Amino acid sequence: MNVNIRGQTRHYRTVTFDAKQNHVLLIEQRLLPHEFKIVATWDFRETARAIKDMVVRGAGAIGATAAYGLAQGARAFRGRDLKKFSAHVEDVFQTLKAARPTAVDPVNAMNGLREIMRGGETVEEQQGLALAAAEEFANEDVRHCEEIGEQGARLIRNGMKVLTHCNAGWLAFVDVGSATAPMYVAQTEGKKFHVFCDETRPRSQGATLTAWELAQQGISHQIIADNAAGHLMQRGEIDMVIVGSDRTLGRTGEVANKIGTYTKAVLAARHKIPFYVAIPLSTIDWNLKSGFDIPIEERHESEVLGAFGVPKSSKFKVQTSKSARNTYVRVGNPESGARNPGFDVTPAELITGIITPAGIFKPREIWARRKQLGFERKNDEKE
Amino acid sequence: MNVNIRGQTRHYRTVTFDAKQNHVLLIEQRLLPHEFKIVATWDFRETARAIKDMVVRGAGAIGATAAYGLAQGARAFRGRDLKKFSAHVEDVFQTLKAARPTAVDPVNAMNGLREIMRGGETVEEQQGLALAAAEEFANEDVRHCEEIGEQGARLIRNGMKVLTHCNAGWLAFVDVGSATAPMYVAQTEGKKFHVFCDETRPRSQGATLTAWELAQQGISHQIIADNAAGHLMQRGEIDMVIVGSDRTLGRTGEVANKIGTYTKAVLAARHKIPFYVAIPLSTIDWNLKSGFDIPIEERHESEVLGAFGVPKSSKFKVQTSKSARNTYVRVGNPESGARNPGFDVTPAELITGIITPAGIFKPREIWARRKQLGFERKNDEKE
Repeated sequence: MNVNIRGQTRHYRTVTFDAKQNHVLLIEQRLLPHEFKIVATWDFRETARAIKDMVVRGAGAIGATAAYGLAQGARAFRGRDLKKFSAHVEDVFQTLKAARPTAVDPVNAMNGLREIMRGGETVEEQQGLALAAAEEFANEDVRHCEEIGEQGARLIRNGMKVLTHCNAGWLAFVDVGSATAPMYVAQTEGKKFHVFCDETRPRSQGATLTAWELAQQGISHQIIADNAAGHLMQRGEIDMVIVGSDRTLGRTGEVANKIGTYTKAVLAARHKIPFYVAIPLSTIDWNLKSGFDIPIEERHESEVLGAFGVPKSSKFKVQTSKSARNTYVRVGNPESGARNPGFDVTPAELITGIITPAGIFKPREIWARRKQLGFERKNDEKE
Repeated sequence: MNVNIRGQTRHYRTVTFDAKQNHVLLIEQRLLPHEFKIVATWDFRETARAIKDMVVRGAGAIGATAAYGLAQGARAFRGRDLKKFSAHVEDVFQTLKAARPTAVDPVNAMNGLREIMRGGETVEEQQGLALAAAEEFANEDVRHCEEIGEQGARLIRNGMKVLTHCNAGWLAFVDVGSATAPMYVAQTEGKKFHVFCDETRPRSQGATLTAWELAQQGISHQIIADNAAGHLMQRGEIDMVIVGSDRTLGRTGEVANKIGTYTKAVLAARHKIPFYVAIPLSTIDWNLKSGFDIPIEERHESEVLGAFGVPKSSKFKVQTSKSARNTYVRVGNPESGARNPGFDVTPAELITGIITPAGIFKPREIWARRKQLGFERKNDEKE
């Protein structure tokens, strides 16, 4: 989407690939909203670290990063021995998979790549196929987000106030975003609406990323503390909630998303406010039978005990060559320690609809429509 | 309660009065948990500013601070003209009242003082009565908190996990606290339990104050992001919620408390987890007929857009003479702006019980028990 740099508007994707240098290029999301910078990872381990350290985050973006990372790793292999090459690719796969255990997109993306790579008869052919498949994965991610936007835009009416949680925006995908896609389409349709961005502690992706990207596109919005949505709903100030999903269970309609999503769903249900989840099809997990089986990543307590920020005087910077300006400050009592679950699971009963590229469905309709929504036979056979 | 200073344990009250200097002495709560410091306010305007700027916060603590502030202002009057003195006291009253418009404790405390001051026939007598009444108000606040602790401790059973929001601890009162009082009594009874402290954005009182004071008393606890409680409840990791109240409506049982309290009540109701509100009687508003009539303070957006913290390397300090070490960092996108309601209203139906010094009651029982709970006839006449 657009980024305003020194008064000029330029288009960027969150993740791209430099085939010549074999580099994955990423927007350094930890510097936003204070600084805009592109970083290059020079090997697959570095790419995995960028996922783990949240240089890049969000379902689609880490899917594409893992796809590019697998291609990057495959292309770095020297030699012609297909067996050794396969072992190497398996190592690359496991390294990238381990970077974010809760997410399903990297695994789906990389499995797709490996499937396509099998069409090559030499190491070189497989390397070429890996890169082409990664590029196609990224392009498909963008198309899916555009389709989500078309589907969801009709839910947004003039004058509406929409709540979103965390960042399921273009920064969470290759472009356009999932939860933000209907907003961007509604904007081009000339609709006027206002967005409340949940801060989304402990990493504050709503306050830093969603707020920044909505500001870049000129959409009316404000940040609120995660604590404030209940009050605003009670006073009739929120008309709809749209969030993203890190993993959606095809069999049950349950949604695993950023910690705090479940709370917003419970509040919305109490106030009879429509609660929508926007998902690209790659986020659907067709295997798991219960949300309780989703591994919930327990992240480091320092995230809860402090915050990343910049001194009040600093100005927004573009493309500097210096390292991260965001500094960590201690906020809470350090001796107290913290619990820090990264995700939670929202049951189907609290979800008004799932916005997919193929239409808006009730969460429990997904399984019945599995053929249409990209369910693959081989998943079924694994059971 | 206790503060551990250089290996020694000393007892402190949150608010005291230096009669010789006519100073109100306050724990500088904005420096906690990183630094422990007592500050003196030298006149009533300074005392009002300390309330407004949250040097001191919490229902009982600002009640006592306003009481001491009224005595301080009254005692600063020079002259014998009772009419001029009354006008001056009215000015002091209005200045202190305006410092925190949502809270009812300062007004109740100061009205009590003025009532008692009428017993004096000279300016000097009234000044003396004001100070004695302020001291009695502070002592009564402590007694009430101790009684809340006795009443509430029986709710805490061995092995329980208790969630609390914001700070309704001893730092929010003169001593002991309301929501924490049952914990401190249960601790002396030898019960083992664990407390989750909601961070409580945007001002993080749970992470900074509640966590610090529980650490000082040696109670097992952890900080969680405000987003995490829903997930922990869903996974069966929270057995009870105890919060405080800034204003409790005697007629309806509704509770106005720190923003986010309502959300926790909604979550607790969904999970059938007992939700208790601990209140000293001074917090009860006998007049208002609906929670929607409670003025909800809209605070500055900078609180949501950033955070106060200290560099990671800094160590806890005691009694330094230097000014505030906490520095403000920008977290969110500054151009986005923020909504920042400071409080929300929890309806009676979501509250399991109100823990008072006189017993634990259903919220809608309060009105029927109004005589026992300190309802005064004169309030009724105002209708």
